[in-house]
Order: sequence, then C-alpha cells, then structure tokens
Amino acid sequence: MSQALEGIKVIDFTRVLAGPFCTMLLADLGAEVIKIERTGVGDDSRYFGPFVEDESLYYNSINRNKRSVELNLKDSQDLEILKDMVREADVVVENFRPGTMEKLGIGYEELQKINPQLIYASCSGFGQTGPYSHKPAYDLIVQALSGIMSITGQPGEKPTKVGSSIADIIAGIYTALGVMTALFHREKTEEGQMVDVSMLDAHVSILENALARYFATGESPGPIGNRHPAIMPFTMLDTKDKYLVVAVGNQKLWDTFCEAIGRPELLKDERFEDNRARTENSEALEAILNEAFKEKTTKEWMELLEAKSIPCAPVNNIEDVVNDPQVKARRMIEEVEHPLLGKIQIPGMPIKLSKTPGIVDKPAPSLGQHNDLYKRKR
Amino acid sequence: MSQALEGIKVIDFTRVLAGPFCTMLLADLGAEVIKIERTGVGDDSRYFGPFVEDESLYYNSINRNKRSVELNLKDSQDLEILKDMVREADVVVENFRPGTMEKLGIGYEELQKINPQLIYASCSGFGQTGPYSHKPAYDLIVQALSGIMSITGQPGEKPTKVGSSIADIIAGIYTALGVMTALFHREKTEEGQMVDVSMLDAHVSILENALARYFATGESPGPIGNRHPAIMPFTMLDTKDKYLVVAVGNQKLWDTFCEAIGRPELLKDERFEDNRARTENSEALEAILNEAFKEKTTKEWMELLEAKSIPCAPVNNIEDVVNDPQVKARRMIEEVEHPLLGKIQIPGMPIKLSKTPGIVDKPAPSLGQHNDLYKRKR
Repeated sequence: MSQALEGIKVIDFTRVLAGPFCTMLLADLGAEVIKIERTGVGDDSRYFGPFVEDESLYYNSINRNKRSVELNLKDSQDLEILKDMVREADVVVENFRPGTMEKLGIGYEELQKINPQLIYASCSGFGQTGPYSHKPAYDLIVQALSGIMSITGQPGEKPTKVGSSIADIIAGIYTALGVMTALFHREKTEEGQMVDVSMLDAHVSILENALARYFATGESPGPIGNRHPAIMPFTMLDTKDKYLVVAVGNQKLWDTFCEAIGRPELLKDERFEDNRARTENSEALEAILNEAFKEKTTKEWMELLEAKSIPCAPVNNIEDVVNDPQVKARRMIEEVEHPLLGKIQIPGMPIKLSKTPGIVDKPAPSLGQHNDLYKRKR
Repeated sequence: MSQALEGIKVIDFTRVLAGPFCTMLLADLGAEVIKIERTGVGDDSRYFGPFVEDESLYYNSINRNKRSVELNLKDSQDLEILKDMVREADVVVENFRPGTMEKLGIGYEELQKINPQLIYASCSGFGQTGPYSHKPAYDLIVQALSGIMSITGQPGEKPTKVGSSIADIIAGIYTALGVMTALFHREKTEEGQMVDVSMLDAHVSILENALARYFATGESPGPIGNRHPAIMPFTMLDTKDKYLVVAVGNQKLWDTFCEAIGRPELLKDERFEDNRARTENSEALEAILNEAFKEKTTKEWMELLEAKSIPCAPVNNIEDVVNDPQVKARRMIEEVEHPLLGKIQIPGMPIKLSKTPGIVDKPAPSLGQHNDLYKRKR
C-alpha cells in the first residue's frame, strides 16, 4: 500500500516535544523527515530519561521513522548544504524561539527566496506575533497561562497540571494539520506559505465548556474534580482495590444502577429522586456510593455493571493501558527493532486511513545516521 | 484572501463534541460544512448549557461557520435528498457508534458506491474495529481507560480527570488531520478513502513520557502533581493571593532565583546545592518556597522574577485568559454577530496560515437555517 505523504520531503529543525510530535505524525504518514541535529550533540531530548542502556526511550518514542543529519548551523559550509536540502524540500518545520531562524539567516523570508513553493511551519510557545512572542515557554508555563490548570483538580483544592505535556502535544498536532492544509493548497495552486502555531493558542482553543460558561456568566469556573457538572452519578468511585468511573446518564439507568449494586433503597430516597436532586446532593450520594463500592473490586463491579449495560470503566494505570485488549487490537502500541536495544515498544498511529495507512516501523535514527545520504551530495 | 478549503463540501453528521470539533476546524479553514440535524430536534448539544436566552453558548462555540439542514434519516424521501448531497460532496464526517450509519443504509460501503472519490471520516469512542468497538463512550470513560487520569493529580492522591473534554477534542483534531491527509492524497490520485479515529487511540498517543517510563522500568508512574519529575524548582507555588509557576531549569537560574527572592541562604544549604539534591529534597524546598512566596502577590512576584529573566507565569483563571494580552493579540477569542444574542465571544482559530488564513466570522446556524438552500433542489 502507498502512503499519503510519499515523496514529500520535510526538513525538521525541531527539538524536544511539540515540533518533533508534528514531524512524527508526518513521518508516520509517509513523509521523508530529515531531522537536522547539532553536530556531535543532537536533540536535547536524547539526554532526557527514561534510558535503557544510555538510549533515551523518550527520544525514541517521538522520533521513530525519521532520519538524522548532523549540521552546525553556524558553519557557512554546513549552511550551504542545508540550503541545498531546502531547495529540494516541500516543508520546513522548526520550533525555536521566534527570531532564532532569522538570526541564522534561514528564516521564512530567506528560505522562500530559494524555494518559493516551500511550506514553512513554526511551532512556538506563544507564536510569531504578540507581546509574549519572545518569552521562554515550557509546558508547565503554558498550562498555567492557558487556564487548564485552573479547571483541573479537586473542587476547592489547588490547580493541577495535566499529567502529560499536552500543551506541547496539541500544538504539535495542530502544526501537522496546518502543514497538511498548506500542502493541499499548494497541490492546487503551487503556492507555498507560512504556518504559525503556538502552544498557548492551541491550549486556549481546547478550553471548551469552561470558556462558554465564563462568557455566559462572567464567572471563572474552578476545578471540577471527577464529577460531571450537571449529571449524577457520572463520576469516579473508590472500590476495594482501585477506582472505577460510572456514567449514569438518565433516570432509567439510575433505576438499573441502584438495583444492580444492591441498593434499591436509594430509589426511595427523595434526595436522589431525579438528576437535579442527585446533582444538588452529589456529595451525600458520592459518599454513599464510595462506601458501597468498597465492598467489591473494580473487576467485580465491572462485570456486574457491564451485564446491565451501565457505562463504566476501570481507572487504568499505564500497565493496564498497554495490556488493554482494545489498545492491542488497534495497534496503539507498536514494536520496532532498535539496532542497540532490540525490540522496543512505542505508541502507535491514531489516524487509521484505509488506502494510505500510517506506518510505524522504523526506530529513531542514531545521531547523524543519515549524514552520508544528504551531505555527500556536495 | 482565499481559504485553503474553499470549494470543499463536507456533509456533517456529527453531534456534541469530538465530531463537531473536527468539522469546526474544516469550516474555519474554508470548507462548506453542512450539518445534518434531526428534524425539529437537532444536535443534542443545542440543549447543553450554558444558555443565554435559551441559546446554548456551548453549541454556538463549536458550530460556528457551519450550515444546518434538518433531515429525518429514517424517512426515505429525506434519505434521497441526503444521497444527492453526498453525490456532490467531498467529505462525510460522522461520530455515531460504529454500525449506526450502516443500519441507516449510509455506511462507507454504500456511500462510496454513489461517490467513489468520497472521503468518509468516522470519529468514535473506540474505533471501527476491536472488542470495545460497540461500547458507549463518554469523555470520562475514555479518560479513565486511557491512563491519563492515573498520571494526573497530586502525588499519592486520587486519579484526576483533566478539566476539559480532551479525549473528545484530541480525537476531533486527529480526525481533521486524517481528512486533510486524505484530501491531499485524493488531489494527487483521485482516490477516496475511509478515515477511522477513536478517542481511546487518540488519548493513548499523547501519554508521552509516562509510556516511555513504563517501558523502561515496567512500573506504572503515578500522579505527578505540579512538579517536574527531574528538575527543581519547576513547580507551582502559593502566593499571597493566588498561585504562580516557576521554571528554574539550571544552576545559574537557581543562583539568580535565590537572590531575586531574597533568600541567598538557600544557596549555602547543602540540601539544595545542585539539581539532584533539590529534586531529592523537593518537599522540603517546596515548603520553604511556598512560605516565602506567601509574602507577595502573584503580580508582585511576576514583576520581580521577570526582571531577572526567570521563566514564570501566573496560574490564570478563565477570566485572566480571556483578558490576557497575548491571547488578545493572537485573536484567540473572536467575536461573531449572533442574530438573537448580538455579539458573542467564542474561541479563535489556533492555526495561523499566511496565505489561506482560518476565518471565524459566522455564528452557529439556527436549526434548519439552510434547509431551503439544499432541500429545494429536488
């Protein structure tokens, strides 16, 4: 089978996470992604744990399917090699702080002169414009600024960071979407362009109901915990061994639920007679349910509730996720052969295309592994 | 200026969040998105709060720029109208439970017969294949199953849900990326195809370091709180009025930081002499810093730390975000004119394209607002 981005050449200046996540998606879709790494040093994330035999599994997971070429961007000869590469490229992706590429003489203005059809994508903390444009950004900084921390956590308690670097990742996915949109436009018009995505913009765009609530009421919502703001019980419960979430979305399910868990007396309790009452008395109800659910394990509850078609799920830890039958069936954990480590496991490709599938089959490159292929041309 | 998806027609069967988020992005990029809504009823999210004068701001925020046509998919005449629309369409997007479109006689197999170049995108809880395929999915269920809850929250405390419906949203963005990839391929080959994205797959793909850590050690990481696992201080601190995050990423910044906050004695404390020591004694250090930071407001600390170029940010609430100068400069909050409500504010478009910009200028449609335009054809 062919891949959608076969024949598309991407010069990849990105480091660490947001940019590399973008170019990983493009590589999985079939693009030739050539990672430009600092001679003798490489991407900072080569030095980020976790390590197995001095190899960063972190670097490996987000740089599979790419090629690595070492260049010193302050060396005039290397810069000429780079410009030759850009001449033949379709896309450049970079995630430096705005101004860095320009200082090196390889900003959008310069590169489009040597390749007018080039698509040049920048993924930065705050974007190429605006008062924060030149500020340093880390995922933590952007999560704080974006408001996501203020709505995550237990009600009345401290703001809480999301446990993965989603500010980086969402910006990376949006950058890939920007590149594909620009490639589509170029295919029709032969016109290149610049794509400018910021972590902060990306994060603001996903605030969803919290923004709508603010615009409707003028009040900032606080952390919402694990409960649904308007449906009850639609929350996480403690079990004998772990946790469980249940989604009892209507009155009929509530009837079934109370019978299923052996608490028919709750159906006669007027504090819980309808969804409005249950939401108003959610703390009392949650306390009763947490007590009740401690009597069995998550697995026992799952069997009991699933038999009655009540939407529920275990709160999986990472080991559970990796071994989940659906995750396996969808090949969301892939194995690739690493030259030093043997078989290693990395996340799969979440976009399933029937005719041009994403493929995850090559490990991340060693530093400079493809120097010969691109540097010997001169 | 032109838009990249001008002339692209999308038949949109999606409801509530994941699917509508995808088609919103396509509409913002210029596609003609025709939302098929149940006659007299419409998308469920028209009935989800927050409301202003009976209009759901939630519905409005994710359905701007779209058109609405009412159809009863169980009525044979309406089904014929629909098929006529599909004949002229480029893309179909749906987020029903797998099997629903097939039961209605408008699954991928059927629709590609009447339009072989069609791109048919499905966005579901668990995907079109695998043992969970037909299970009901809600954001809470997928957050639990995906492992994100197990790594979000304070260390040693309960798993915590992310405060926005990110399982839905990330799946929606991936679906848009799948559609663009398929459109690019079709532009080159005239071949249509099916795009299959699931909320669970999408979420597994963003677990990032947590997956790498599990594969390296065989142990599931727990909730990581607001601290960086390997850098200190790189965390949230309490101030006199609110909270603040600081990112003190190296020894030089640590020296500057201690001087800036008036605690030079910390530099002589061997518990904190280097990053490794600070990480090992992070609780002691965080307690000292939280005490110290209570002496001034977040704003006062921001001024003091920014003057010394120490990366930091306030933990914004939603009101702060909406009024943030960078968010404003990037037009991440847009105003559209709503026929009943007047000017309303909704999130902006995070992908900034220089030649074919995303545009957010039309409000969400009223139910059936564009019936005449599409139904009178027959």
